[in-house]
Amino acid sequence: MTLSATTAGTTPGTSAATGVPVAPTTGLRRGVGVGDVTLDPAGFWGRRQGVNARATLGHCLAWMERLGWIANFDRVARGETITDRPGWQFSDSEIYKLLEAMAWELGRSDDPALQETFEALVARVGAAQDADGYLNTAHGHAGLAPRYSDLAMGHELYNTGHLLQAAVARHRTGHDDELVRIGRRAADQVCEEFGEGGRDAVCGHPEIEVALVEAGRAFGERRYLEQARLFIERRGHGTLAVRPLLSAEYFQDDVPVREAVALRGHAVRALYLSAGALDVAVETGDDALFDAVARQWDRTVARRTYLTGGMGSRHQDEGFGDDWELPADRAYCETCAGVGSVMLAWRLYLATGDARYPDLIERTLFNVVATSPSDDGRAFFYANPLHQREAGAPAGAGVNGRAEGGVRAPWFDVSCCPTNVARTLASLGSYTAAVDERGIALLQYAAGEVRAGGFVLTVQTRYPDAGAITVRIDEAPAGDARLRLRVPGWAEGATLRVNGGDASPVRPGWADVTRTFSAGDEVALLLPVAPRFTWPDPRIDALRGTVALERGPLVLCLESPDLPRGVTMENIRIDTAHALEEHGDGALAHGSAVDGPADDGLPYGPPPSERVGRPALGLAFVPYHRWAERGPATMRVFVPA
Amino acid sequence: MTLSATTAGTTPGTSAATGVPVAPTTGLRRGVGVGDVTLDPAGFWGRRQGVNARATLGHCLAWMERLGWIANFDRVARGETITDRPGWQFSDSEIYKLLEAMAWELGRSDDPALQETFEALVARVGAAQDADGYLNTAHGHAGLAPRYSDLAMGHELYNTGHLLQAAVARHRTGHDDELVRIGRRAADQVCEEFGEGGRDAVCGHPEIEVALVEAGRAFGERRYLEQARLFIERRGHGTLAVRPLLSAEYFQDDVPVREAVALRGHAVRALYLSAGALDVAVETGDDALFDAVARQWDRTVARRTYLTGGMGSRHQDEGFGDDWELPADRAYCETCAGVGSVMLAWRLYLATGDARYPDLIERTLFNVVATSPSDDGRAFFYANPLHQREAGAPAGAGVNGRAEGGVRAPWFDVSCCPTNVARTLASLGSYTAAVDERGIALLQYAAGEVRAGGFVLTVQTRYPDAGAITVRIDEAPAGDARLRLRVPGWAEGATLRVNGGDASPVRPGWADVTRTFSAGDEVALLLPVAPRFTWPDPRIDALRGTVALERGPLVLCLESPDLPRGVTMENIRIDTAHALEEHGDGALAHGSAVDGPADDGLPYGPPPSERVGRPALGLAFVPYHRWAERGPATMRVFVPA
Repeated sequence: MTLSATTAGTTPGTSAATGVPVAPTTGLRRGVGVGDVTLDPAGFWGRRQGVNARATLGHCLAWMERLGWIANFDRVARGETITDRPGWQFSDSEIYKLLEAMAWELGRSDDPALQETFEALVARVGAAQDADGYLNTAHGHAGLAPRYSDLAMGHELYNTGHLLQAAVARHRTGHDDELVRIGRRAADQVCEEFGEGGRDAVCGHPEIEVALVEAGRAFGERRYLEQARLFIERRGHGTLAVRPLLSAEYFQDDVPVREAVALRGHAVRALYLSAGALDVAVETGDDALFDAVARQWDRTVARRTYLTGGMGSRHQDEGFGDDWELPADRAYCETCAGVGSVMLAWRLYLATGDARYPDLIERTLFNVVATSPSDDGRAFFYANPLHQREAGAPAGAGVNGRAEGGVRAPWFDVSCCPTNVARTLASLGSYTAAVDERGIALLQYAAGEVRAGGFVLTVQTRYPDAGAITVRIDEAPAGDARLRLRVPGWAEGATLRVNGGDASPVRPGWADVTRTFSAGDEVALLLPVAPRFTWPDPRIDALRGTVALERGPLVLCLESPDLPRGVTMENIRIDTAHALEEHGDGALAHGSAVDGPADDGLPYGPPPSERVGRPALGLAFVPYHRWAERGPATMRVFVPA
Repeated sequence: MTLSATTAGTTPGTSAATGVPVAPTTGLRRGVGVGDVTLDPAGFWGRRQGVNARATLGHCLAWMERLGWIANFDRVARGETITDRPGWQFSDSEIYKLLEAMAWELGRSDDPALQETFEALVARVGAAQDADGYLNTAHGHAGLAPRYSDLAMGHELYNTGHLLQAAVARHRTGHDDELVRIGRRAADQVCEEFGEGGRDAVCGHPEIEVALVEAGRAFGERRYLEQARLFIERRGHGTLAVRPLLSAEYFQDDVPVREAVALRGHAVRALYLSAGALDVAVETGDDALFDAVARQWDRTVARRTYLTGGMGSRHQDEGFGDDWELPADRAYCETCAGVGSVMLAWRLYLATGDARYPDLIERTLFNVVATSPSDDGRAFFYANPLHQREAGAPAGAGVNGRAEGGVRAPWFDVSCCPTNVARTLASLGSYTAAVDERGIALLQYAAGEVRAGGFVLTVQTRYPDAGAITVRIDEAPAGDARLRLRVPGWAEGATLRVNGGDASPVRPGWADVTRTFSAGDEVALLLPVAPRFTWPDPRIDALRGTVALERGPLVLCLESPDLPRGVTMENIRIDTAHALEEHGDGALAHGSAVDGPADDGLPYGPPPSERVGRPALGLAFVPYHRWAERGPATMRVFVPA
């Protein structure tokens, strides 16, 4: 679908841009505001949003205070000569992502204590801003490297981008206060420095692009958008100084955005860049650019994406691999790439209305974003592999130096993921529904209330544990309106009932009810969430001969604490002819344990013989997002069949 | 087998220690000297050794001159304040490895022009040595970091280790001249600084250990051995300062050598360390240490080694993976790890006489070491993957920044492999045979002449192209002696004939002929080199459902230039029921092309259907070591069956 087709006949405007992270000024659809959604605190997402508010925000703040990342702002403000700065050159961005998370949370809950914490933190950040708007604690001040002296790895514009996203969040939740002013000054400085006739350069880590477009939308500054457009067009011409052992592809500086075939290089960089490019395309009506990114998404989803929605196959460079390079064991699937994928798919949905995009968002939210934080919101996965061969060492209470999977850690040396999870959970409501001229679409199912587009809807569901979703209309707009429910791609056999009528089959995509709604109307969607087998494409070499289990939107996994005694991960074979059974919120599969060859020299030779050692094993699978909650374990999602 | 068992009753001595890289003062076996073997210049290895001498040595010298790595010695000698030093902190080691290669080559061929080049280079190196023996161009001089100020990543002792190996090569080839004096002074300084009561520390990159033992053996200095022992014992106690994103395991500093279970962390580091530990064990009669390393080798070969003999499954950290983590596509299999594996297996063989070790050496020499250099000896593979999904970009004539596989490059930013190949090929003769009290053992088959243990043997063979190996005895010791021929592990069905008698079947391991030999005697070994299928252990997830082809000691591969038109690497299926046919020096397999699912959303879903598109395809496989000689290509060793 091309952009001109989707935007034809729409009315640009910013009036509805309240409480949302993304607000195109063109296009039919608009996400609902964070303040327009109340998630049931006992539901899957409501509970996580609550833990995020009560635990994660404070956890991140405490860690960054303890490590001196926040004090870096105080030191710049005091004019210290800084020679021993703690934190990486991108640590400022973590404070900004936390501010963004706090801003969304305040937009949702308006907690006075959080408001106070937020304002105090904003004041410390603002005190470090130079008169011309430049704000960075790792460059441009006494003792530090000069401004913009290392565009490839300095992350200055990356940091500024996250500052802008925080400022947008603050503005969109009804405040035109200090953080907004700080953000605008910083954006102005970027335009001054990098605008037409200024430095002809880009930042090694994309982020400023997506942020400038949104700041332009929020603050009505067309030149921010223009600056974003310049950054997008300048990229891909090899202007970044490539470090030894890093390639231009790592930075997506090898090929211009509009000429690339698939997402490549560092996964988070690729996803943030694509989101920014889409925003520019949407705002400037650039069909060719839009189609280029949409095609790259298609190819990336078809050939470079994990069952969990995770992206990034390589630890090396935290990067995408080649097509079909999707190893389960060394899947990097960085949590931040999951967040980036949600950002990109969300923009594609807003522009096109295609249900494939919220489908991928759902998969990614349940199986990447929800997997990262521990139940208590104080430890996180950075990488999200689909196969853990050796149980990780317990993370301990300190900073975790490595981003390996296997254990959730309270904090990382490079700690991008915790704050990224925090800002996503705080703004999650906005992704659950969208309004357009014809009504409202429910995109993600979570128990709670949605107030938008003239509707007040109460959603009752135990999803994803159960597949029944009842939408009660408490208020409705006058006249005909459309209530659109997303039927996930996996939900073959779903049915819809309106006001207790007959159940009609609905196909994956959209189930629409268009009528004049009255308070008390009820629309019930039944999604089949019985556990099912899922097979990989035969071109994925690393998964040949295996099968996975899914249950509704949840990917399941087999974890060592659930293995029958005397059975190892290596000697299990699943019997796909034997039906799966419900088992708590997971599933019970049947299979056998085989006795394989003994270790005897090189593991290559004549056809290996396997002897069934224990037939008729029952194998209990649990939701992947919960794995390692019981301590370090081995685990696999794809099991030999 | 324990060390005490193998060394019981042996006579320590150094008299035979001529021309060999490794000369234990205990033990039954001794490799033959580089000067005792003349390889036929038309044979597989003779040709490569000739290209190495004629092309590679000069190629390496020219590159290091051009890049200023050699001039770094001149600058130190002149006392310059150095602020802009080219090359990594380990670039000195490349000059030393080249000197070692030249020394072996001179020990073999005594070329006056090479002698002159060698002496000039030694003089430049020597001029940079401090009065106390310290020699390093990246530390310890004006403008540079102080001596031993960064033991984790500074590589100072690593560099010194390679200097010592060069000095040993020079000494063992009959010269007690300048390079030997430089080496001894450097070794003395290391003992001074790191000896009992000195710095209680180790180097981040092992190498000094193996080098000190050999220097101790060559120069009769027991304290060098003692220093090596100290370094081995100190390792594994977490004394190295771990960098962000690097772990103690990377440096093998997580667990003491004698407690480790398998090789782990950075593969080259692990292999060099293990070789040094074995040397220490052998010299000190430390059975426990010996057995620990031997067990680690067993486990590593059984679970962490590729069909090619390649080691190192991860690009990240250039490291070993977990057990069974052996992806074909992202196999790192660094060329230097192949060299390190030969070093380790050679020491195990000398101590035990077990044929498994020269078996792995053969596999590694043919499929890793021989794969690296191009036919002209002026370009090299750094990584040696077993599956190339996308054809690499041509390497160009400049320095290659990345160590990715797919194209041989003339030089690398980190260029450890070219000089490692050079020193291995120059000293290759020493690995082809060994003598002991009972006679001589032929370990690697190459056309040429061997003079050792009272024998003069002419080996006639076209191996590995053909399996017939004829050994003519031109001279023999008086009285009974044993001529021992290695029968490779894959060679089921081999036969042996003595002086034209009946062919007797011989089993993998050793074929022995013990008698009083006379000039003119002939022993003929016939190895079955018909192409064969080889299956992976079912625990190697990444290879499930595939099969490989081998031919004698050669791993074969399917390369895109040989694909039938319209067929891609992804849609080939091999028919293992159809016999393989000879096809040049490769093989012809039969299979079919399948039409797989179309790209349509995520590559996971119901059982994938494959429709045979083109049956009865003939698929020509070529030796893996030749791949990409025809230009960038896609390639795979393991093909779905």
